[in-house]
Order: sequence, then structure tokens, then C-alpha cells
Amino acid sequence: MRTSFAIGVDVGGTRIAAGLVERKGRVVKDTRTSTPRNGPFAIVDAIIEAVEQVSPGVHASEIAGIGIGLPAQVDFLKQSVEFCTNLPLAGVDVRSLVLSRVHHEVTLDNDGNLAANGEFRFGTAKGARDFLMLTIGTGVGGGLFVNGEPYRGSRGMGGEVGHMVVQMDGPPCPCGGRGHLESYLSRPVIAARGQEVARAFKGRAILEEAGGKVEDITAEAVVRASLKGDEVARQIMLDAGEVLGRALVGLVNLLNPRLVVVGGGIGESCAFMVERAAEVVNGEALAGRRDVVFQQAGLGNDAGILGAAALAFDEHDSREGLHR
Amino acid sequence: MRTSFAIGVDVGGTRIAAGLVERKGRVVKDTRTSTPRNGPFAIVDAIIEAVEQVSPGVHASEIAGIGIGLPAQVDFLKQSVEFCTNLPLAGVDVRSLVLSRVHHEVTLDNDGNLAANGEFRFGTAKGARDFLMLTIGTGVGGGLFVNGEPYRGSRGMGGEVGHMVVQMDGPPCPCGGRGHLESYLSRPVIAARGQEVARAFKGRAILEEAGGKVEDITAEAVVRASLKGDEVARQIMLDAGEVLGRALVGLVNLLNPRLVVVGGGIGESCAFMVERAAEVVNGEALAGRRDVVFQQAGLGNDAGILGAAALAFDEHDSREGLHR
Repeated sequence: MRTSFAIGVDVGGTRIAAGLVERKGRVVKDTRTSTPRNGPFAIVDAIIEAVEQVSPGVHASEIAGIGIGLPAQVDFLKQSVEFCTNLPLAGVDVRSLVLSRVHHEVTLDNDGNLAANGEFRFGTAKGARDFLMLTIGTGVGGGLFVNGEPYRGSRGMGGEVGHMVVQMDGPPCPCGGRGHLESYLSRPVIAARGQEVARAFKGRAILEEAGGKVEDITAEAVVRASLKGDEVARQIMLDAGEVLGRALVGLVNLLNPRLVVVGGGIGESCAFMVERAAEVVNGEALAGRRDVVFQQAGLGNDAGILGAAALAFDEHDSREGLHR
Repeated sequence: MRTSFAIGVDVGGTRIAAGLVERKGRVVKDTRTSTPRNGPFAIVDAIIEAVEQVSPGVHASEIAGIGIGLPAQVDFLKQSVEFCTNLPLAGVDVRSLVLSRVHHEVTLDNDGNLAANGEFRFGTAKGARDFLMLTIGTGVGGGLFVNGEPYRGSRGMGGEVGHMVVQMDGPPCPCGGRGHLESYLSRPVIAARGQEVARAFKGRAILEEAGGKVEDITAEAVVRASLKGDEVARQIMLDAGEVLGRALVGLVNLLNPRLVVVGGGIGESCAFMVERAAEVVNGEALAGRRDVVFQQAGLGNDAGILGAAALAFDEHDSREGLHR
């Protein structure tokens, strides 16, 4: 049966969002709530409550299923949460816990993979069968599409793009490694760089964006100052684009994609950073691979909900033997 | 029709090898000749001569086709040579030139992709549907298998694994980039490191392997000294393994492969270097991905011929609608 709606849930470190989504990607009804801080069961309760809030008045048979995106290492084949930095979900059987209390199929995935899935189905990457997605926000996540399918690798955990070594003797990465892309490119790193230049009395425009206090300087303040033309802030974001580009040179040589989509809060708000990365890649990649198109993600705030809903539609359709 | 043989041709910078290969991977007859230095047509002539030398007495209808591996950036979809560092083949329509003078189908590919293809069909990677192949020799090449097929990317040029940035401010790479894996790991780099320590009077054992002259120290001499237990040579190869591992951390996080096969002259001769890379990867990769198996390639000298023949069988069978 061809269902009309799916429910997408986007679980973040600070916020849980859910939406009832039509097949064409319109969010019919949505809700947002703070992520509970008192343990995994409170998080599961909040997920179920959000699902209930967006689905009244719709018959269960019209709903393809529930997709849930987690900021975690999800083993897609086992549907298990292997590792989660920001939330106490590692080892918790989120899928079964939700499934036992709702009348829909439930599928979990990593949030970066879902961002790619959303862009493939509803956004910038519509119709692109081979592309690479990066989300730049609190960390660097992403997903890889191969032949029109998310590439998951041998244990269903593929698609992490933020943990390539770009500088062997570089700074520590939150994952425990060293010199990874995420060690150079994330909200905390950009904020720290903004605070550093503000302390050195060079970041006046950045300081203004943060209301005058160095410790209130966020990555968003740096981006805003850069977009208003402040040279110091601009240099911080150009440096970030340079590192992003250098990291992508290797992936473009290995994967020869036609399209790279850059999303996440920082990626979506700073076009010239993405342009800088594109220049670097198309200058340093091997011959014959220098025609990679870089685009910013287009789904904005609803990206997580839409990606999760896209997954629920996909899983439903493949269970029912329907083709996309 | 199910053919019995394929002809594999392995074109290298210094040597052209060809072999008549049975479906099970036995090389029935082979030949080797020096790569001509007098232009592209002489190279094409040498390829055709080698093909003729290995195929007498076999009826054309028994031969699936000819696979040719080139040390070049080959656009697999267009069957064109886009770029070639060591031989004057860029832009030369090698396929048509050979095709016009033999009675078999001809398919070109990059030598790293063919090494992966050979290992998948006849070697260490038999049956592994998702794996990464690296060849470490004069440069670093490789191939990527996804769902039991070589992954070629949007323009058929995927699979280059040697040109990832591992150190943004690192040394120049022969490709024109900077700080790539190949800038740290190749015959010339290992030889230069051996010569450097020999000049500093620390590489006595390496010097002995090279017959006493610093300028005669090759990568092979360093590997031999390391395998005889010389600590200085051993450290050079451990450092190489460390860089290889650091470069692979990112690819393992992105691709989540179960198997990495390391071949090429240096990769096949130095097991402890490969073991060091495996330790690094399985220590630094993200949770849930630390069970990657590293193996050395198993096809030795015939790898190029076997990989090229495997391609010819694959192309024949897919033309005929046969399944492997």
C-alpha cells in the first residue's frame, strides 16, 4: 500500500524535533522540545511524545513509518547505537523501546546519513546518484551516496567524513584521534578562534556580534561578522574552507563524485567558505576530477526531520516492494 | 558463449607483461618486454606483439578478450587515457589502436583498479564484496570495491587512494599536490630516507644491502635491511606504516570496510609495515570500526596480468549476460 505520510524525528544534543511529512517533502505538522538530561528513558519518552504530537487525526495505515536520526554511531544493519558522545544512548535499544509503544515501523540512522538522505530525496542532491554530503556544525558529519543508495559499508556504519587525518601532528579531536578534519572545523573550534583573535584585540567586529563579551563569542558570531565584511572573521572562515578543501581532495580522488553538498549550521550559513573549499579541491585534485560541483544544503531547519522521514518512506517502500 | 581464456596486459613504466590466463586464474603462457622509450605508437606495437606471443594455438573464439592495465588516469566510461605521468599516453586512443589490429574486445583500466580486480577474483580478496586495495610501489595506487563491483565514481576515475592530504604543510607530491600519502610512501621516498640515514653514518646495514654506495640505495635495499633486523631500516619502514595507517583512519571511518589489501612491490615485501598500519587504524578509527582485517596481496609478479585478465572476463561475461 502506498502511504501518504512518514514521521521524521531528529534527536540532537539539545533539542528533539519531529514532523509529519508528506511524500513530496512538505512538513504538515511539527514539534520541538528540549532533549531531556535525565537519562536514556526520558529521551525515549520525549521521542514518543513528539511522535504522538504530530500524528493525531491521521490513520495509522496512512503512515509509512518513523525514521529517527541520532547524533551517534548507529550500526544500521543491527539497528543498534554503538557510540554516542553527547547523549547517554550507547548500547540502549532505542528502536525496540520506541517500537513497543507506537504502531509504526521504526528505523534508526546516524544524523549525517539522514542529512544526505534528505538532500537526495527532497533537496539539493535530488537525482544525484553519487555524491558526498558534509554537515558542519557542532562536529563534522556526513554521508556518502553510491549508485543512488546510501553507502553503509560492511557493518552499516559508513559515511563518517569528519574523522580523516588532515594533519598528522595536528590538535586532538573530540573522538580521541589527532589532526582530524573535525579538529579544525566545528562550532567550538571556530568559536575558540574567534575568542583568540578578540583577546588579541583584532576581533572587534566579532566581539560586537557577541554583545561585547569575549566568552560569549560563538561560531555564529564569527560567521555573522565575516558576512558583514570583517576581514579578521573572514580570514577565520577562509582558513576553515581551506582545510575543508584539503580534506576533500583525497575523497574526490578516491570517489570521483560529481557533487559535494555542504550543510549543517555553519555549512549552510557561510557560502564563501564552501566556495573556498571548492577552489582548493578543483585546484589540487588529480586530472579529470576537477569538475566537482559544490552546493550548500537546501533544507535548512527541517533537514533532520525530512531526512528521517525520507528514510521511513524508503524502508516502507522496500518492505512493500515499491520502487522509488 | 563461455570462453576459456583471457589475455591480460600489464603496461608499466619500465616493462610490459602479457599473459594468457585461464578462468581459474592460471597463467598458461606469458611474456615480458621492456617498455619502448620512442613514443606512444611503439608502446602500442609492443602491446600487440606481446598479445600475439601469448595467444598462438588458441582459437579466437575461446578468448574472452584483452584487458590492459595502464599506469595512468583512465576514464573507464570513455575508455580514454586522461593523464599519464611516466609514459607518453595521455590523449592517445590506446584502445582503438589495439582493437584495429587484434580480433578481440579490448578494455583499458587503471593499474590500481586492476590490482584490486585481480585480488577480488583470484587472490586475497576473493569473495570480499567491500574492500580497499592499496598498491605501494613507485607510487601509491589502489582500488575500491563496493558491493562486489569496482567503484568508479561519476566519470569512471574513482579508486585513487594515494592522493589524500595527510599533512597540510607536508612535502610536495609528484602529482603537484602537497602532503599527500604518496609524498610519504613510495619507492623514491623510502630510498631517499635510506640514503639520508646512510649519509648520516647510521644506515650501515642499508648501505651493505646496496653494495656500499649511498646513491645505489633503493627502497628494496631498505626493506631487505629492515627484514634482516637492522633497527634504522626498521624504523624507516615503521614510520611508513604509521603514515599509511593514519591515512587509512579516515577511509575506514568513511567506508567501514572489513578488509584492506596492501600490495605493490613494497607492500608485498614488508609485512611488519602493514601490521603497523593495521595497529594504527584499529587504534584510532571510530568505535565499531576497529575490526578491519589487513592482508598483504597474494598474486605477486602476476598481479597485473591476472587483474587485467579478470577485467576481460568480467566485460565478456557482462556483454554476454553471464553471471559470475
